[in-house]
Amino acid sequence: MIMKVNCAIDCNMHDIIHDLQILIRQPSSASNKQNLVRCANLVAAIMTKANIKTELIYLNDREGDVPPIVFGEVKSRSNPSGKTILFYNHYDVQPEGPVELWNNADPFSGDVDGNYIFGRGSSDDKGELITRIKAVEYYLKETGDVPCNIKFIVEGEEEIGSLHIQEFLTKYKKKFACDGIIWEFGLVDSKDRAVIHLGLKGILSVDLVARGPSHDIHSSLAVLVENPAWILVCALDTICDKNGRILINEWYRDIRITTEEEIRIIENEPFDEDDFKNEYGIKKFVNNLDGVELRKALIEKPTCNICGLSSGYTGQGSKTVLPAKAMARLEFRLVPDMDPEKQFARFQNHLVERGFENSIELKMIDGERPARTSINNPFVKSVKSAATETFGKAVISVSSAGSGPMYHFKKILGAPCICIGGSYKYNRSHSPNEFARLDLINKATKCMASIMQTYG
Amino acid sequence: MIMKVNCAIDCNMHDIIHDLQILIRQPSSASNKQNLVRCANLVAAIMTKANIKTELIYLNDREGDVPPIVFGEVKSRSNPSGKTILFYNHYDVQPEGPVELWNNADPFSGDVDGNYIFGRGSSDDKGELITRIKAVEYYLKETGDVPCNIKFIVEGEEEIGSLHIQEFLTKYKKKFACDGIIWEFGLVDSKDRAVIHLGLKGILSVDLVARGPSHDIHSSLAVLVENPAWILVCALDTICDKNGRILINEWYRDIRITTEEEIRIIENEPFDEDDFKNEYGIKKFVNNLDGVELRKALIEKPTCNICGLSSGYTGQGSKTVLPAKAMARLEFRLVPDMDPEKQFARFQNHLVERGFENSIELKMIDGERPARTSINNPFVKSVKSAATETFGKAVISVSSAGSGPMYHFKKILGAPCICIGGSYKYNRSHSPNEFARLDLINKATKCMASIMQTYG
Repeated sequence: MIMKVNCAIDCNMHDIIHDLQILIRQPSSASNKQNLVRCANLVAAIMTKANIKTELIYLNDREGDVPPIVFGEVKSRSNPSGKTILFYNHYDVQPEGPVELWNNADPFSGDVDGNYIFGRGSSDDKGELITRIKAVEYYLKETGDVPCNIKFIVEGEEEIGSLHIQEFLTKYKKKFACDGIIWEFGLVDSKDRAVIHLGLKGILSVDLVARGPSHDIHSSLAVLVENPAWILVCALDTICDKNGRILINEWYRDIRITTEEEIRIIENEPFDEDDFKNEYGIKKFVNNLDGVELRKALIEKPTCNICGLSSGYTGQGSKTVLPAKAMARLEFRLVPDMDPEKQFARFQNHLVERGFENSIELKMIDGERPARTSINNPFVKSVKSAATETFGKAVISVSSAGSGPMYHFKKILGAPCICIGGSYKYNRSHSPNEFARLDLINKATKCMASIMQTYG
Repeated sequence: MIMKVNCAIDCNMHDIIHDLQILIRQPSSASNKQNLVRCANLVAAIMTKANIKTELIYLNDREGDVPPIVFGEVKSRSNPSGKTILFYNHYDVQPEGPVELWNNADPFSGDVDGNYIFGRGSSDDKGELITRIKAVEYYLKETGDVPCNIKFIVEGEEEIGSLHIQEFLTKYKKKFACDGIIWEFGLVDSKDRAVIHLGLKGILSVDLVARGPSHDIHSSLAVLVENPAWILVCALDTICDKNGRILINEWYRDIRITTEEEIRIIENEPFDEDDFKNEYGIKKFVNNLDGVELRKALIEKPTCNICGLSSGYTGQGSKTVLPAKAMARLEFRLVPDMDPEKQFARFQNHLVERGFENSIELKMIDGERPARTSINNPFVKSVKSAATETFGKAVISVSSAGSGPMYHFKKILGAPCICIGGSYKYNRSHSPNEFARLDLINKATKCMASIMQTYG
């Protein structure tokens, strides 16, 4: 059965690429709501064409405000009371800038060059989404059925913290009911091994703003007027020590200790350190980590990252100003059982304790809890066997270093979540020149078909 | 004699405003060399029309690279072997951005509204320049002569640190020879008192750059990859203490102690603290300074100011990146006898001592020495008497908090330099909505005529 499906996937790569190009060429970052709705409709059209029963779901009275979820469903005719797999994906993408760093002037080109297809979203997450839709499409076409029930949730706010997914899941809990969830992404490492992540880190994003004079003023006045950029630098420099350890009181308090079983998994997980260094142009890892300690850090270490700094003038030529405002965007990654709301309150306290209560405005941008699925869940076995069959080798990982709304899916739908997919590890997602590898799109499509068959 | 000239100035304000508008409407920030040359030619045309013998002076073999000096000269027919006043001005302006903060969408409008004329350069320095040209023009028209010899140096690189003025002055030392120099600006305070600054602070501008991975990468990798923004924050936070005292070794070593005479001048200088706070929207001064201590700080305290910070993404919506680069532009103001080259070397040492030798790239952008003219120089008396006659009240100040190439003028031409002009203290120079007050343009033009007469 699966041979026929795989064969159809091989024969129809032009169709898979074509529909992926349609999605890439429709920009869909959060800044333009109309684009999001256009993209949702394109996803729905491609799913409908695949014989998936599809609808756009809006939150009550919010049409136009919150981008819709594209919901899809296929009942198994031979096994209607069997298990249900839910594919979770998203059609929104990260902002494409800085445009001048893209080799192709158009970040939404969808151009194919050899084994690569380029464009914002080509991997994250339109490239992953297309493999799931096409696995169902060709399974149906070749066999007239699917071996288990299938559902799709394709949301439009993943890149800005899945602001309404909890509300959607709560409201449509019955409609979305399922037994296992295939998460929106899965990595393939530089040795072509599929990496099966069983969890995600949590995230807390915040903006810090310091304000000075009412407008940017002549910098000779620095002797009289306090500069908000200095206040910001001072405040930022209280957050971590030189080794990246976060100095906020009780920051590490709620961390659940990594289990012996998790440590064993980490010890067995391959990680090519030189490939990583070459890809990112770095000479050493943070704190000179290596080996198991490095792999453990990826999974169990909370971080505080500066995503952006801005103040005054840094353009060409001299401009001697004392800026009116200075701003930093920080992002903390959280591990089980850290709660972003609680961590935010701790950060607020920290700024008060350090004397920045009146000089730094702190705003929470988004927060997501960490989540993990147990390696002993039977769904893990099905996924691993399918991935091994398709990719040749599959590696289990306790958690990705990335984040997403997995906590809500697990809690509300009560189903295990597993990250498995076809995103090359160094695919430049969130960066200029994002790409997907066509060989991996082919394999990931087959892998999804195989998961349906194995789990069904 | 001066009555006739003043009368002509009053009757011809439309002409003065018209020619100022011509200059404002020609953008001339450093980023566009063609605009600079266009502006130099417009200045030359206006000077020629005023019967000033005018020429553009380029540095040898550098045409097109270094913007020219507009040189002007008028010999006194009645007093050809008498004294020579040199007016020093500049036709380049600060960058106009951020454009969205200008009330008028066009930063180069030159629009007049009541007593105000708006636009980048309206005060700094096209507004000052026009008063000097027009004082000469109407003196010549009304009396057929000027009471002393007059020279003009109008340069095109003041806002980027007068990069070639030393070379120009050295090369054309004889041509530029003079007895007294009227500096490019002079303030009028909120009580309509002319402030006569006898000196300038020095300046040292530097860029600090920290580099991380080869491109902006997914922020989940912060656990492995060092973030250059953290390195920059760390380095910046070693430079000053919380009171703005600079912690660089030997930073204060070369400072000449303020003399008793200078302190007496400072004590007598008025400074309306409430007006200042209102104008800049601040509640208190740095370190809660007030009174004489505040006025002393303006003159004798070196500062370190952050002009700009930039790194990663701080735009609308979330973008979770670990930036490839972080950059800060710093500017130190220097007092006599600090030397920017020496201070730069001290700063370099500081970064080495603090362990940033390999992680921070440091680049000197520009440097100018501080300079002061003694209150006992006879030129000061002439200027003060002319300013008192025109503005009603004139105040002597030991030094402006601003900077410029005064050191080179004093050293190479050997003449005293005095800042006197018609720029309202809160004229938003270097900021959006820069303006000049027409009543002060009128008074400053008369003041320049009076200085020629008094000194001649």
